[in-house]
Amino acid sequence: MSTWVYGFDQIDDAEAFVGGSWEEVRGLLGGKGANLGDMTRIGVPVPPGFTITTRACNDYLAGGGTLSDELISQVDAALAHIEAAAGKRFGDPSNPLLVSCRSGAKFSMPGMMDTVLNIGLNDEVVTGMIERTGDAHFVFDSYRRLIQMFGSVVLGIRDEPFEHVLERARQQRGVTEDSELTTEDLEGVISQFRQIIERYSGRPFPDEPIDQLRLAIEAVFRSWDGKRARDYRNAAGIAHDLGTAVNIQTMVFGNMGDDSATGVAMSRNATTGEPGLEGDYLTNAQGEDVVAGIRVTKPMEQLAEEMPALYEQFSTIAGKLERHYRNMQDMEFTIEQAKLWLLQTRDGKRTAQAAVRIAVDMADEELITREEALERVTPAQVEFFLHPSFTPASKEAAVDSGALFASALNVSPGAAVGMVAFDADLAVEWAEQGRAVIMVRPETKPDDVHGMLASQGILTSRGGRTSHAALVARQFGKPAIVGAEQIEIDLTERTMTCGDTSVAEGEWISIDGTTGDVFLGQLETQTPDLENEFLRRLLEWADEVRDIGVWTNADHPDDALLARSYGAEGIGLTRTEHMFFDPARLPIVQRMIMATSPADSSEALAQLLPFQRGDFAGLFRAMDGLPVTIRLIDPPLHEFLPSLEDLTHELADLKIRLLSASTLEQIDELLGKIEASEHMLTEVERLHEANPMLGLRGVRLGLMMPGLTRMQVRAIFEAAVQVAKEGVEVHPKIMIPLVSHANELQRQRAELEEEAQAVMHEANMTIEYQFGTMIETPRAALTADQIAEYAGFISFGTNDLTQMTYGLSRDDAEKAFLVHYLEEGILDRNPFATLDADGVGQLMEIAITKGRAARPGLDVGLCGEHGGDPESIELCRMLGLDYVSCSPPRVPVARLAAAQAALRQKAPDDLSRMTSPV
Amino acid sequence: MSTWVYGFDQIDDAEAFVGGSWEEVRGLLGGKGANLGDMTRIGVPVPPGFTITTRACNDYLAGGGTLSDELISQVDAALAHIEAAAGKRFGDPSNPLLVSCRSGAKFSMPGMMDTVLNIGLNDEVVTGMIERTGDAHFVFDSYRRLIQMFGSVVLGIRDEPFEHVLERARQQRGVTEDSELTTEDLEGVISQFRQIIERYSGRPFPDEPIDQLRLAIEAVFRSWDGKRARDYRNAAGIAHDLGTAVNIQTMVFGNMGDDSATGVAMSRNATTGEPGLEGDYLTNAQGEDVVAGIRVTKPMEQLAEEMPALYEQFSTIAGKLERHYRNMQDMEFTIEQAKLWLLQTRDGKRTAQAAVRIAVDMADEELITREEALERVTPAQVEFFLHPSFTPASKEAAVDSGALFASALNVSPGAAVGMVAFDADLAVEWAEQGRAVIMVRPETKPDDVHGMLASQGILTSRGGRTSHAALVARQFGKPAIVGAEQIEIDLTERTMTCGDTSVAEGEWISIDGTTGDVFLGQLETQTPDLENEFLRRLLEWADEVRDIGVWTNADHPDDALLARSYGAEGIGLTRTEHMFFDPARLPIVQRMIMATSPADSSEALAQLLPFQRGDFAGLFRAMDGLPVTIRLIDPPLHEFLPSLEDLTHELADLKIRLLSASTLEQIDELLGKIEASEHMLTEVERLHEANPMLGLRGVRLGLMMPGLTRMQVRAIFEAAVQVAKEGVEVHPKIMIPLVSHANELQRQRAELEEEAQAVMHEANMTIEYQFGTMIETPRAALTADQIAEYAGFISFGTNDLTQMTYGLSRDDAEKAFLVHYLEEGILDRNPFATLDADGVGQLMEIAITKGRAARPGLDVGLCGEHGGDPESIELCRMLGLDYVSCSPPRVPVARLAAAQAALRQKAPDDLSRMTSPV
Repeated sequence: MSTWVYGFDQIDDAEAFVGGSWEEVRGLLGGKGANLGDMTRIGVPVPPGFTITTRACNDYLAGGGTLSDELISQVDAALAHIEAAAGKRFGDPSNPLLVSCRSGAKFSMPGMMDTVLNIGLNDEVVTGMIERTGDAHFVFDSYRRLIQMFGSVVLGIRDEPFEHVLERARQQRGVTEDSELTTEDLEGVISQFRQIIERYSGRPFPDEPIDQLRLAIEAVFRSWDGKRARDYRNAAGIAHDLGTAVNIQTMVFGNMGDDSATGVAMSRNATTGEPGLEGDYLTNAQGEDVVAGIRVTKPMEQLAEEMPALYEQFSTIAGKLERHYRNMQDMEFTIEQAKLWLLQTRDGKRTAQAAVRIAVDMADEELITREEALERVTPAQVEFFLHPSFTPASKEAAVDSGALFASALNVSPGAAVGMVAFDADLAVEWAEQGRAVIMVRPETKPDDVHGMLASQGILTSRGGRTSHAALVARQFGKPAIVGAEQIEIDLTERTMTCGDTSVAEGEWISIDGTTGDVFLGQLETQTPDLENEFLRRLLEWADEVRDIGVWTNADHPDDALLARSYGAEGIGLTRTEHMFFDPARLPIVQRMIMATSPADSSEALAQLLPFQRGDFAGLFRAMDGLPVTIRLIDPPLHEFLPSLEDLTHELADLKIRLLSASTLEQIDELLGKIEASEHMLTEVERLHEANPMLGLRGVRLGLMMPGLTRMQVRAIFEAAVQVAKEGVEVHPKIMIPLVSHANELQRQRAELEEEAQAVMHEANMTIEYQFGTMIETPRAALTADQIAEYAGFISFGTNDLTQMTYGLSRDDAEKAFLVHYLEEGILDRNPFATLDADGVGQLMEIAITKGRAARPGLDVGLCGEHGGDPESIELCRMLGLDYVSCSPPRVPVARLAAAQAALRQKAPDDLSRMTSPV
Repeated sequence: MSTWVYGFDQIDDAEAFVGGSWEEVRGLLGGKGANLGDMTRIGVPVPPGFTITTRACNDYLAGGGTLSDELISQVDAALAHIEAAAGKRFGDPSNPLLVSCRSGAKFSMPGMMDTVLNIGLNDEVVTGMIERTGDAHFVFDSYRRLIQMFGSVVLGIRDEPFEHVLERARQQRGVTEDSELTTEDLEGVISQFRQIIERYSGRPFPDEPIDQLRLAIEAVFRSWDGKRARDYRNAAGIAHDLGTAVNIQTMVFGNMGDDSATGVAMSRNATTGEPGLEGDYLTNAQGEDVVAGIRVTKPMEQLAEEMPALYEQFSTIAGKLERHYRNMQDMEFTIEQAKLWLLQTRDGKRTAQAAVRIAVDMADEELITREEALERVTPAQVEFFLHPSFTPASKEAAVDSGALFASALNVSPGAAVGMVAFDADLAVEWAEQGRAVIMVRPETKPDDVHGMLASQGILTSRGGRTSHAALVARQFGKPAIVGAEQIEIDLTERTMTCGDTSVAEGEWISIDGTTGDVFLGQLETQTPDLENEFLRRLLEWADEVRDIGVWTNADHPDDALLARSYGAEGIGLTRTEHMFFDPARLPIVQRMIMATSPADSSEALAQLLPFQRGDFAGLFRAMDGLPVTIRLIDPPLHEFLPSLEDLTHELADLKIRLLSASTLEQIDELLGKIEASEHMLTEVERLHEANPMLGLRGVRLGLMMPGLTRMQVRAIFEAAVQVAKEGVEVHPKIMIPLVSHANELQRQRAELEEEAQAVMHEANMTIEYQFGTMIETPRAALTADQIAEYAGFISFGTNDLTQMTYGLSRDDAEKAFLVHYLEEGILDRNPFATLDADGVGQLMEIAITKGRAARPGLDVGLCGEHGGDPESIELCRMLGLDYVSCSPPRVPVARLAAAQAALRQKAPDDLSRMTSPV
């Protein structure tokens, strides 16, 4: 004889039957049945019940759709068992047992019959219950619900006729809510419901409780084979032969008097993570009432006063469940006439702040290991942790009031509130007056950076995830939203418009860089504690676990200091050219570019030298004792000149003005300007390239204009010598960009080594240094063995490497088609956000293998945008990189992600224990 | 006792000594000594002599620099042996033997002592020789040469003092050439030369012949260890312990009377390849006289009349040498008093035409195998063969007269003569009037193509090897020179200027696309015979040997027919978008791009459909029975619109004109034009991309605008159906470009298959077809296994693949830095001309391995510019490609190159026999 039915209190038998594997228990009893049994086993008061196994379901479906005698008799016996436990009897008007019937497969699965509550009610039982509870309204309401649920889920009658009856009743009574119907109304509804059942199913509503139950069980079984369930399984790849279990459980009621209650509670504070029960309950109420929010709920603290013993019991149970499930629990409970029942428990949702604290506390309590604590916090939570956010209430209110203006790409997280400024200079001016500013531009350019720095946040209508605005915003930790194409910015009228709504310059907006939402007006922000003790400790544990370094990309000493405070172990990328855009230097840089003689060029370079030396000295001081990787000039020179388009416009404009000039003075002035513009235009045209990304930049510039990179190397070493004399420990690593052939590196390095030696010789001092290169072109990766001969280290520049591997310009792709690709699922993720393992990752693997074969122990890093992306970090670790380098705000994120990668890759099997009890 | 000396007639002994290896013989006797011995052995009359071995040299150098007694005695004995053979005696005034002394190492090597002639002369011998020859001037001249050479090369005295004496003598005599000095002058010179020797070396010129000889031998030995020789060996990677041999050979004189002569002859005609001796000689003259060109030489035919027996003997020897060396020979000979001597023989240089004929003839004569015949012709010779060239005489005359105007990049071979036209329309106009035109532009664009087609050749001042001008020129076989940056083109003045020389529109120039030279005026051209029987046969042999297909890149039926006549086995690439630039279609294409509604777009596409159908039908007919690979639209759409710059200029211009417009009519017209321009500008700005190469193009266009590629596929299948009904055998292969992710291919192919099926269904006909893709992005290569799931074939687009692998824009690189890289040796070749094996080749290998693993037998081709480059073809064969596809004119080149690659890779060892006698 097979066992088709297990009581919740027979979980041990079920486990023994399948051989002790929890996975198999879930297979036999379904997820829900297994958990109810599990709670029962550890002594948590769960309303008694039993589970009909998935095998019974399969047997039923195979056997042509009739309940076997064996199953019927086992169900009867189990029912008798819970009658005894509950001290009530199924169908007994004087003390009736009501049960619920729920499906429960191994995997949660929509499309199956869900729930029938209140099974066991009929006219007679109803009368008895009204007598017992004195609450006719509740009992009739329960009854009409049973009939409706039974009709709909068991008999497959559509909801419309039932809803129609209810609607008519509400109309007649002149109310809008079902709960406002009177007892008499409900009696009428019930009578009509019974007619509906008879009309649509051809037989009357089964008054016999046991018939109700058996029909419900069969309905659950049949629903396993329903079309929606089959479709879902096909889509989700779930086997069709698993079958579903059926759970029959005693109904309990929190509205049976003042010694009854119902509520929801967390085992710890879900917002702050502080220890202690947190939640809401209602006395003499149903579970629905707590959720519906019609009555004002009471906090759990009050339960401690109202029912101290039960509160105590509940606390003990919460602790037991936490220990059992090794996580903070979210519990539904009902107190029926001074008896506490737990209806459900599951891992509780929590804020980022709570997640961190709970993880750390639980590790301290030795409830979980430190490794598990690390797994309990997501990198996104750490990231959220570091930025201000809007309070949920203000955000909700804003959405409700229609203040959501637009949504676009969330490129730099955090919340910012400010007045709209449409240009950089105004942003700076207002900021200096103490006003908060959001800078709004169609797109940003290097000469907008001062305005971006002065602003609270940045919004652009163009550009993608790696546009200038996005890169700079992430670099400086400014909340930013870009690519809001639906917003039209009118720089003449100084307004921006989206749909019918316009915002004028100076009006307030609030932007959420974490979600990409733009709101009108000022939302309330909250700033989490950056010095948070729990986060600090968690990240320290992460550092103990992780085996890949976390460095930072920083161009300024302030960034470097910030990143260091976040735990960065070195600078993996300093973009020297960013320093060239400083207004004090740009004219010198332009003079250098437009030099017509070697002497002119040398003079401009000599003027730049002290600036660069100062830049580097500041970085060395900030990173005292840690490596500082400085990339020599990378972008094409035309980036330092006005654009061809602007110049053409300017010239046309000047010529038009010349036509209408009236005085000789004006004419003279205009002619002078035209000449200067034309000179500049000639230069810009000379430097114009069809595809600047693939043009004269990086090491190519160094080889064509050796004076420029020699100047940079001189500045690096002069700075190193200077700060070393101050007692600072310097470790410069000079990185030569965009190499595609080993010979480029060999030549350039030889030239620069000479300059380095010269400076050290002049200073009579030796600095420990390294020359290396970025791996940005596919060819560099493919020939890393040759390149490693001349490189003390290599660092993957995965932005460019991704562009070239895909043949995809990051400046253009997101705008033109990448969004479409992601929407359509042609690509499943943005390769500029998450490293493409198949393509770019393969090149990295080739490069590392070949590079380390040629130079054992070759230092390998990554300094693209991907350095702060958890999935990319995991790939990097797998590939054996020594470190990743990311923007300062992402350093803590990267530290955690790196630790998680190490844990996952070290012991992938151990993870299963996190999802099932031990 | 070691043998240090081998007579030329003792070559067998030398060979036996080293064990029979010719390589070792060359090691022992040096290259020159071994060949002199070899000629002697086969019975060719070589002036007697002997070789002192390389071992003797090493022994001398190791022994501290004195000639061992053993060596001295062996030299004396060898000298006695040649005295006996020559019937003359060394130092005997009555019948003197004179000898030359030359170094001769295993490898030809500059930096060593070269030659001392006339050893054995002294005052006494001179007197005797004058008596014997009656030519005092010749004897004295020989004597002064001996002293000068001896002083310079043996004693290391600088040339200046000797030259100073000669110069003074010429001044005194009032002549400009040494040969014009009188006998008396020479006697004076000799006396002063002897003084110089004594002054600079501290001892008199050695009058004793044997001393002269020994000192010369020592000088050769010492020169092996000289600085220049060591430096050369270091640079060339030649071992320092090889040593040099010394060759001592009897002097013979062709100026000893009318029964004496000297000359140079080829064993076959070096210009045409026809059989029979060809060359020049002089009676009673020295070898120098033939070369100097002072006396008018006589053709070899005349020797047959003057000295029939000797001519006959020479013919026999030439045949013997050809058989021995298995190649056409270039021989120096001297007849001394009716006795024929061969002084040297080597493989003869020849024209392309001669190379082909000689190779085929020799194979027919069974002198060499057909495989060897294939190895004897270079691909460059076949290429030259297909283009007109300037006659050597006219080119020489042009250079002499200063008509060489400029030199730049030789991007498309052949010679062309025409009148300069500075724009495409004028070129067409003049061509229609029957004038020959050379189109000259700063650079060319797609809308210049009609002018390029109408011209004889193209010259641009900008652009690189893969610029538009270069690509189109190669495609259409038009001679072209690009990147002539030193030429300034003034389109307003209609002139071009280089240095001080200007050329006006309409003036004649001649351009040599094979060399890159631009000449003023009209040079004489010669057109080789395209139907050449010998070439046809050679290429047939090539087809038998080669194991990689040769297809062609063709966009027009004419190209396809031409390529087919050259032996193309299919079309590997049709660039459909080239058809869009046709003036009749461009407005429709622009309408499609600027369409504001789906209906507008569909209408434009419907108008394009018949054009494309016609294009494809023509190609299918031309290639009846062969595969035709059609690539769907590839370039970014903005290429079909005017440039941003042009539009901005135009708009500014229109606005300026508006300011000065006086009538309402004018204003109206200008406002209309401004509106149209602004509309176009908006569109161009919308499509503007920072890096169009990496932007919205290829399959990305197909996915964003499926209507466009669907139209193309419809056109392909409608055309296929139409010509199939005419009885043509069609094999369309549809190629989807710029895939970087398999999903792109999967989606686009699914969409297009649907259209293909629809057309075939409508026509109720089945066409055999294939869908495939280009491998142009590194990622496509790296993930070729995934891509092969959806690709029936793959074809490497190595132009783009090279660009992306290097991160190098072909439009910019050559202009900006690639030329510098090649000059400086940073790159040893242009990766756009010759496939980069290390990087791009590695990606190809990955792609082929993965692609064929996923789809066994996957068809793999190449359709980049590299398809016509011999070295690249060899790499392709090694990688296992099925075919290469190149522009029509390169098809014959590719056929030969492919055969050579097969021969080289099949039997690399067999090649050694080609360089040494068997």
